[in-house]
Amino acid sequence: MTQRNSAVRLGIGDDCAILRIAPGDEVLVTTDFSLEGVHFRRDWQSPECIGHRCLTRGLSDIAAMGGRPVAAFLSLALPANCPAKWVDRFFRGLLKLASRYGVDLAGGDTAQSSDGVLADIAIVGTAPKGTALRRSGARPGDSIYVTGALGESAAALRQLSTQKSKRRDIFPEPRIAVGQWLREREIASAAIDISDGLSTDLSHICEESGLGAVIEAAAIPIHPAARRFRKQALELALHGGEDYELLFTASGRTAVPQAIAGVTISKIGHLVKRKTMTLVTNGQPRALKAEGWEHFRAR
Amino acid sequence: MTQRNSAVRLGIGDDCAILRIAPGDEVLVTTDFSLEGVHFRRDWQSPECIGHRCLTRGLSDIAAMGGRPVAAFLSLALPANCPAKWVDRFFRGLLKLASRYGVDLAGGDTAQSSDGVLADIAIVGTAPKGTALRRSGARPGDSIYVTGALGESAAALRQLSTQKSKRRDIFPEPRIAVGQWLREREIASAAIDISDGLSTDLSHICEESGLGAVIEAAAIPIHPAARRFRKQALELALHGGEDYELLFTASGRTAVPQAIAGVTISKIGHLVKRKTMTLVTNGQPRALKAEGWEHFRAR
Repeated sequence: MTQRNSAVRLGIGDDCAILRIAPGDEVLVTTDFSLEGVHFRRDWQSPECIGHRCLTRGLSDIAAMGGRPVAAFLSLALPANCPAKWVDRFFRGLLKLASRYGVDLAGGDTAQSSDGVLADIAIVGTAPKGTALRRSGARPGDSIYVTGALGESAAALRQLSTQKSKRRDIFPEPRIAVGQWLREREIASAAIDISDGLSTDLSHICEESGLGAVIEAAAIPIHPAARRFRKQALELALHGGEDYELLFTASGRTAVPQAIAGVTISKIGHLVKRKTMTLVTNGQPRALKAEGWEHFRAR
Repeated sequence: MTQRNSAVRLGIGDDCAILRIAPGDEVLVTTDFSLEGVHFRRDWQSPECIGHRCLTRGLSDIAAMGGRPVAAFLSLALPANCPAKWVDRFFRGLLKLASRYGVDLAGGDTAQSSDGVLADIAIVGTAPKGTALRRSGARPGDSIYVTGALGESAAALRQLSTQKSKRRDIFPEPRIAVGQWLREREIASAAIDISDGLSTDLSHICEESGLGAVIEAAAIPIHPAARRFRKQALELALHGGEDYELLFTASGRTAVPQAIAGVTISKIGHLVKRKTMTLVTNGQPRALKAEGWEHFRAR
């Protein structure tokens, strides 16, 4: 699977993979679980979709740092009764996305699971020294932007859980090109991917930067699938997770285009010194709490 | 947790960790599951022991390549009812070992699991370009060596499963120093860690090197805990997994010391062109099959 000019010098089949990193680059590493019953359900999503999303979770973290993904490592535990066909289709979805971004599947682990499909994806990426985008660089007055539209995954989840839909495949696109564009032009003061929901991921930027935020409800780009829920649409866009869009901040003096790498960019608010988050609807401010998907915190 | 002079420039708390690699080094990556009910049982091992072994699984792969471990990434899913005290003790065991080898816990993921404690450890290490030990370099006539003694974990497992013992903590030591010693002196033609059992891991060296092997039963270093099983002792040492010793090969002309970095080295056989494995007991040869711990093969 190793490509020409790949950073992977040795892939699957030894105790470790071997990667060669360009001298001026730093190494980015992220790991993300995809657990059946927690992150996906086999009766709700196709195997290809589950494989795609498993890899997206990792690639999206690389995108948020403005990095170039290099290699993926998949630890995969399957129940004894999991059909080989399901596994083939899972890999097809994962490898199709990997190939689009020039990412080699360079290693991992396999095991039998006693309950459900358990996957953990580790991604190694690179960025030129000292240039990776972080959560901590935002300054008071910086504008807050998001890519694409929010709430599609949350809308699908609601339809599935109320049995208004039997199966729904969403293939989110990791915003690799947008992240790299922002990093190369040194436009973003901070960035994060929206995997846990806008409110929660914005709160991470605020915490890491020691700031608060004011968001204009009307400016939030709501996905058409979420808009169908009318009164609940805003909540889905604010707190629904797994959109894998990017949230970034930039100085008010910086010109940020309306689209980057073909993806719409929306300005949704700005950062403030006071360490609280506020949502403004029709001129009326109210406290905005982080109510997105929050796994138990690492202890 | 980042140490002075650490390769970790940014640890837990952003979308990715950032590592800085010395220009002459290559990057080694390995991932390993530790799943409750598959790799450990909470009623059989202490939390400290489970944490220690979780990290050992990864460090041992770095050792087998002769690498220096740099950073660890832990994806950890816990059942809702898992006591905080258990988690604290798990981390204590893991971090104690990490600290001994100068490894930073630089990131990972957390989730709630629907069944059992699920851990996946990813380790990033380094080795000077082109020097990492591989499974594929062995040549016909090369001698086969193992570190330490084999069968302790298998003996404990047998005692636990027959309820002759209620709890048994074994803290295997990853053979980092031995691996580095072998790499620096260019002594080993191939290497692997014995995580799945001598017979299975030897078969990997044979397959990757396109060779077969002849092993002297009397030369296999059997751990005292396994020797207590008398007639079954050899089987435990041959096929029992999770010893985390190293198996390496070296030219017959190379002088290999009887101990490296304080660890006993035993010569147990040699490689042959014919692609089968043979066990010789009291001068009588018989076929040796890979009967160690074998997860379902990656597809």
